[in-house]
Amino acid sequence: MRTAACLVVGNEILSGKIEEKNVAVLARMLFSLGIEFRRVVTCKDEIPTIAREVNELRASHDLVFTSGGIGPTHDDITIDGVAVAFGVPLDREPRIADAIRAYYGDACTEHHLRMANLPRGADYVGETDPVFTTLRMGNVHVLPGVPWLFARKLEGLRPLLDAGEAFVNRTVFLRGDEGDYAELLERIANTHPGVDAGSYLAPAGADYDCRVTFDSASASAAQGAADAFVAETDPAKVVRRGDSGSA
Amino acid sequence: MRTAACLVVGNEILSGKIEEKNVAVLARMLFSLGIEFRRVVTCKDEIPTIAREVNELRASHDLVFTSGGIGPTHDDITIDGVAVAFGVPLDREPRIADAIRAYYGDACTEHHLRMANLPRGADYVGETDPVFTTLRMGNVHVLPGVPWLFARKLEGLRPLLDAGEAFVNRTVFLRGDEGDYAELLERIANTHPGVDAGSYLAPAGADYDCRVTFDSASASAAQGAADAFVAETDPAKVVRRGDSGSA
Repeated sequence: MRTAACLVVGNEILSGKIEEKNVAVLARMLFSLGIEFRRVVTCKDEIPTIAREVNELRASHDLVFTSGGIGPTHDDITIDGVAVAFGVPLDREPRIADAIRAYYGDACTEHHLRMANLPRGADYVGETDPVFTTLRMGNVHVLPGVPWLFARKLEGLRPLLDAGEAFVNRTVFLRGDEGDYAELLERIANTHPGVDAGSYLAPAGADYDCRVTFDSASASAAQGAADAFVAETDPAKVVRRGDSGSA
Repeated sequence: MRTAACLVVGNEILSGKIEEKNVAVLARMLFSLGIEFRRVVTCKDEIPTIAREVNELRASHDLVFTSGGIGPTHDDITIDGVAVAFGVPLDREPRIADAIRAYYGDACTEHHLRMANLPRGADYVGETDPVFTTLRMGNVHVLPGVPWLFARKLEGLRPLLDAGEAFVNRTVFLRGDEGDYAELLERIANTHPGVDAGSYLAPAGADYDCRVTFDSASASAAQGAADAFVAETDPAKVVRRGDSGSA
């Protein structure tokens, strides 16, 4: 099973100016591709810090995605950090530089052109439009922090990442306290290898009190665990069942 | 300057079932208390993983806050992970156990009572109501993942963390591309030590195009940097100015 990690770069997240939105988007895509998302690190805009985190994550996961720190200003230094991590210089990529010059016209400055810097040995993957291609260096995919751009570039990577695998989810929405189900859920988890069983309180205003979830790379295993759970649960407590992922 | 880190524990975040909401709340409180929030790690529900992450974060930061993995079910293992990190056994805390028994009455089970387990040497701090006190082991504060409970317990810790320090922010909301301001902003950043200067695109629908921000532990330093920026900017481009934090 492939594993993945994410590095979120940005003082704005750690100072509370901007709420992080991209990890959930990445998480849902990785789940749909059957890639185990194991770790997220959020760090400050510091080149040595970014380089150290990139090296730690890329050594211990099959795929790494960075979010943020891409842009024309002095605090946009993720690409510099990736170059330091790999011990390579930055080269200017003519195709991206041309796209930037075309976009900004006479207003284009050296600061704008920094976005065309590429760690030596990196390439651009995903979409064909230069604006939406993704910088990839080794197993590290460098994505911008702006949510709509992150989501669009990430979607462009899907065909590259799709190996025909997927996780599936089976969920049972319940009335009552999650502690009421703890013994049963633990037993189901222990007797259904390859299934990740979880229990979560409902958000305010929901029509249920808690939900139990069964995730697996095997649809039949997830289904079997959910069925076993429901078979031992008072039907009056089951609000409904739900599925996500392919069946 | 005190530093802080956060460990978010939960497969539900990494599988995309639940969007993480607590880091932004913690970030804003730490900013208001002048505590530098340097790092967030999100990890899976695995005791050895939690223990390793806790040990790494507590060794390199003054304060650590964990979010999630507190509850009655088998996947609620943050407290177990903290105990392993510190190499201590778990004891049952009678005062918390009594509060749990009183709350659940006849429905109380051994699974509910797991929430009264306390790593040996830990204490409860913050509020006096047992439901809202926070488990603290060394410099590690163990908070639940449910957002309203996280926020309430965190607020209960404020008096303990308040050392009379605060970061302040000065923001300038602008029309135009952030690249237009990159050279000026970099120069301001370089000539105003102790000020963290940032530049961010506006969210969709905002009445401005980008904003530049100046954060500092010194209100006069943040103000001076913002004033210097505005003095060299076309007034027609300045939509408005904004402040947060004490002046």
